[in-house]
Amino acid sequence: MAGSRVSFAGGDVGPWRVLEQRAVRGDPLPAVERVTVATRGDAPPANGRAPAWSLDGVVSHLRYATRRDVDSLRPTELPLSRPEATRAVLIPIRKSAAWWALAQDERDEIFAARSRHSAIGLAYAGEIARKLYHSRDLGEPFDFLTWFEFEPSQATRFDELLAALRCTPEWGYVEREVEIHLLRDDAFGIAR
Amino acid sequence: MAGSRVSFAGGDVGPWRVLEQRAVRGDPLPAVERVTVATRGDAPPANGRAPAWSLDGVVSHLRYATRRDVDSLRPTELPLSRPEATRAVLIPIRKSAAWWALAQDERDEIFAARSRHSAIGLAYAGEIARKLYHSRDLGEPFDFLTWFEFEPSQATRFDELLAALRCTPEWGYVEREVEIHLLRDDAFGIAR
Repeated sequence: MAGSRVSFAGGDVGPWRVLEQRAVRGDPLPAVERVTVATRGDAPPANGRAPAWSLDGVVSHLRYATRRDVDSLRPTELPLSRPEATRAVLIPIRKSAAWWALAQDERDEIFAARSRHSAIGLAYAGEIARKLYHSRDLGEPFDFLTWFEFEPSQATRFDELLAALRCTPEWGYVEREVEIHLLRDDAFGIAR
Repeated sequence: MAGSRVSFAGGDVGPWRVLEQRAVRGDPLPAVERVTVATRGDAPPANGRAPAWSLDGVVSHLRYATRRDVDSLRPTELPLSRPEATRAVLIPIRKSAAWWALAQDERDEIFAARSRHSAIGLAYAGEIARKLYHSRDLGEPFDFLTWFEFEPSQATRFDELLAALRCTPEWGYVEREVEIHLLRDDAFGIAR
């Protein structure tokens, strides 16, 4: 749905506790303790100072996925907010000017044929829930905000997924990338 | 360039005088006398009441054009703001939910193979300057704002271009479309 806008705010409040935050490429984001995920219309958090950073994105239409990709993915993919998926990772990404200057068929060739981006995602879709938010047209510092949710036992699988994506030719066009690992507050009771 | 945001404001001020304004499909926009085109950072118009409507869009990357399309178009296409191009037409368009639910290959098939959108545009590129602004991800009432500029002597060619696009299968997905014909103020001196 266009206009489904989401804000990720990093600060000292929010249900997601930061386990690790690091710049993979380019400038880091200021280090924070917690992250809030808000959709438009949510009230701002009642406590805490102003967030150290706030990143906006929107759910948008598919940019590369074919009908075949969609039909393969639909029966497999997991929804967000499963109670047992207490781990999350937010990865804001910006691609280079060279990427955005490519024509659609050139980007598609890199995305699909050379990098098999959808196929890699599909292989992990039954274990790791994933949502992509688009930021570039909003004039934001990143082009995409990728959000992953999984059970703590799937953390190694998540690392594999990231490693597989990062050695694709597509990732050669990533010029800024930050990785923020999160644990949901209510998970502490379960984990201990 | 992402973040090149433009606002079209309809009201009683602005250098573009409305010659004709009509809803082609779906709801009309409130009738206005003049249109202002502002980029982010421009001062608001000094005179006049608040605009009756204001539509925002951003210049974004290519969504369907192939490298071949781009290489064909580049040597031919005209820049905006040529002194002799005193006629302009603003056409805000919204496509249906059915369009946006299609996968990229399905939209591309309709856009390129069945509708020959780029080929139609190319045939008129040497006479009519064209700029596409994306609005959908901004949560705007339209998905696109299309802006055309041409010499008054090319008005018939422009009508042909519109007619050619509107009988394509792609146009079956357009659910709201408004057409606003404009003449630049300084043109009155030339035209009389």
